[in-house]
Amino acid sequence: YSVAVLAGDGIGPEVMAAAEQVLDAVSDKFGFTLNREHHAIGGAAIDEFGKALPDTTLKACENADAILFGSVGGPKWEHLPPNDQPERASLLPLRKHFGLFCNLRPAQLLPALSAASPLRADISEKGFDILCVRELTGGIYFGEKGRSGEGAEETAFDTQTYSRKEIERIARFAFEAAKLRSNHVTSVDKANVLASSVLWREVVTEVSKDFPEVSLDYIYVDNAAMQLVKQPSQFDVLLCDNLFGDILSDECAMITGSMGLLPSASLNQSGFGLYEPAGGSAPDIAGKGVANPIAQILSAALMLRYSLGQDEAARTIEKAVAEAVEAGVGTPDIYPQGGYTTTDVAAAIVSRI
Amino acid sequence: YSVAVLAGDGIGPEVMAAAEQVLDAVSDKFGFTLNREHHAIGGAAIDEFGKALPDTTLKACENADAILFGSVGGPKWEHLPPNDQPERASLLPLRKHFGLFCNLRPAQLLPALSAASPLRADISEKGFDILCVRELTGGIYFGEKGRSGEGAEETAFDTQTYSRKEIERIARFAFEAAKLRSNHVTSVDKANVLASSVLWREVVTEVSKDFPEVSLDYIYVDNAAMQLVKQPSQFDVLLCDNLFGDILSDECAMITGSMGLLPSASLNQSGFGLYEPAGGSAPDIAGKGVANPIAQILSAALMLRYSLGQDEAARTIEKAVAEAVEAGVGTPDIYPQGGYTTTDVAAAIVSRI
Ligand SMILES: CC(C)[C@H](C(=O)O)[C@@H](O)C(=O)O
Ligand SMILES: CC(C)[C@H](C(=O)O)[C@@H](O)C(=O)O
Repeated sequence: YSVAVLAGDGIGPEVMAAAEQVLDAVSDKFGFTLNREHHAIGGAAIDEFGKALPDTTLKACENADAILFGSVGGPKWEHLPPNDQPERASLLPLRKHFGLFCNLRPAQLLPALSAASPLRADISEKGFDILCVRELTGGIYFGEKGRSGEGAEETAFDTQTYSRKEIERIARFAFEAAKLRSNHVTSVDKANVLASSVLWREVVTEVSKDFPEVSLDYIYVDNAAMQLVKQPSQFDVLLCDNLFGDILSDECAMITGSMGLLPSASLNQSGFGLYEPAGGSAPDIAGKGVANPIAQILSAALMLRYSLGQDEAARTIEKAVAEAVEAGVGTPDIYPQGGYTTTDVAAAIVSRI
Repeated sequence: YSVAVLAGDGIGPEVMAAAEQVLDAVSDKFGFTLNREHHAIGGAAIDEFGKALPDTTLKACENADAILFGSVGGPKWEHLPPNDQPERASLLPLRKHFGLFCNLRPAQLLPALSAASPLRADISEKGFDILCVRELTGGIYFGEKGRSGEGAEETAFDTQTYSRKEIERIARFAFEAAKLRSNHVTSVDKANVLASSVLWREVVTEVSKDFPEVSLDYIYVDNAAMQLVKQPSQFDVLLCDNLFGDILSDECAMITGSMGLLPSASLNQSGFGLYEPAGGSAPDIAGKGVANPIAQILSAALMLRYSLGQDEAARTIEKAVAEAVEAGVGTPDIYPQGGYTTTDVAAAIVSRI
């Protein structure tokens, strides 16, 4: 297999090094070879090539079976206009170019870590295990946009468009995922206001007929934002369009209180994918050796599962991570008193593989 | 003064009766007369007139100085299509008809009630006091929308449009409000993706120059959804477009844990306004005498302040409410052991006026 490794900025390089050690360990154990090519992305790429997504990087991604992405951005590039920010200027074109329509964001609150959640103990101790399935290449992100008029009359517009086809394929993904979990899909929309949400609801309802074992309900996005805080354990799979998924998947991640543990996958129809931690580049702790590598390591596991067909290797990593965390191994974000560094955590996981 | 009273469904009539007692008490005390006309709205109006917002109701609102709105909707009308739901079919046309562009949603966590918040004690005990200022008559709610194409190619679209003028007037409102509070505005956008957000940011930045004493920062909506859960005390005034304000104002309300205390105001440029509780019609507790009337009572106070120019009467109500709550008076949603009914709470507030 060949993997394009884009470590990026901030803690990206540190946690990526940890993930690569883990990948070495599983490829040894399971006897496969991973060719990893490192390329510039994000702020580092702006500095070196004047572009957050240089052509050489894009070419390398095209020639790979998957992209393992670190994280990008930081104060150094904050003066750039919002549209040129490293994160935006690398992720959106990659999603579009490779048609990565399906974003998976698991957000799990482990009982062992329930004290880290910003939610009250009686809510967090129940734990929760939510999979956000976010549509990633449509909606208001990629619709027509622009400006017109002048002076006080100047207007700007964005268009949210969804087709049946686009909704159907992401909905199928959500229902398939629910079958392997708790058989429950909650579809998020604003069907009392948006025409695109009315179509979204129609198509999701149709798709649900092919999955009689999966229960489906609908929730308005404003209510979803409330219910996630009030009683997150009511959700299993949360199916969202691009914009609502952006907002709610981040809220889901935050209520776990352990962003450093959460991976994500962005997939296209042919099994190609981009895998990255849910958190950001955390420039405040970069270079200090305390960044949590687990989100990056679990992103590598998702890559093995979804793009490289190595499900057993993926499960081996996930098991090793769970065992390490249960044994009290973790960087200060999850175990403030533990004194573990990024490298300690990587070593503890490697030793369990 | 003349007020159109639209009590609506569920707990609406009960909490409205309580608010009217309080209005009687302050109008006696301050020597003004309030003519109140009661009209049908929401599900009750659908049942009686076949329409969530009957023409007679709309006429009565036109002839009034303000609308005091209860809450609408319930299981009885849930079979209706999302577009015909009582809440949507009454509120959106009222907002549009009267140009109620400015929605104010205060969300305050009182130290006395910090245990009710779904947030962890170390977060909630700091308290917070956020004012959501939401643009209410523009954006994706009122832009062009529709469907085209057929079969798998069928698409639906919505358009988000904002003009400089629209952004400027809501931004001014937010900065003026901040001057009376903690001099801090956080403007919410998704300027790394949306053209309308780029304009939003530009105009907000320009308006801020007229308010040198107010500090301004910007936050992406996904990050805002996270920060509200992580550290809500960082916010003072949260300035949002229509859609982001819908989502975040509900999240703000929920993190207080005391939705039954939160009023809201929807204003136009000439001082006319619609005043309603932040929470819904709560059909599960309707008719049981335990609904919290405070949100409705404080909505009446906002009406006195913003539409009727009776600021002292408004402050008298707010003070009476605060004193009653501090004295331990409250329905079971805030004081589960207190045994107070809706009428008890109203009486306790009236007695403090
Ligand atoms: C960087 C930004 C464009 C992106 C998004 O909004 O999709 C990010 O917030 C994310 O969720 O991956
Ligand atoms: C009923 C609905 C259209 C409305 C909105 O989304 O604006 C409601 O959620 C609100 O926030 O007042």
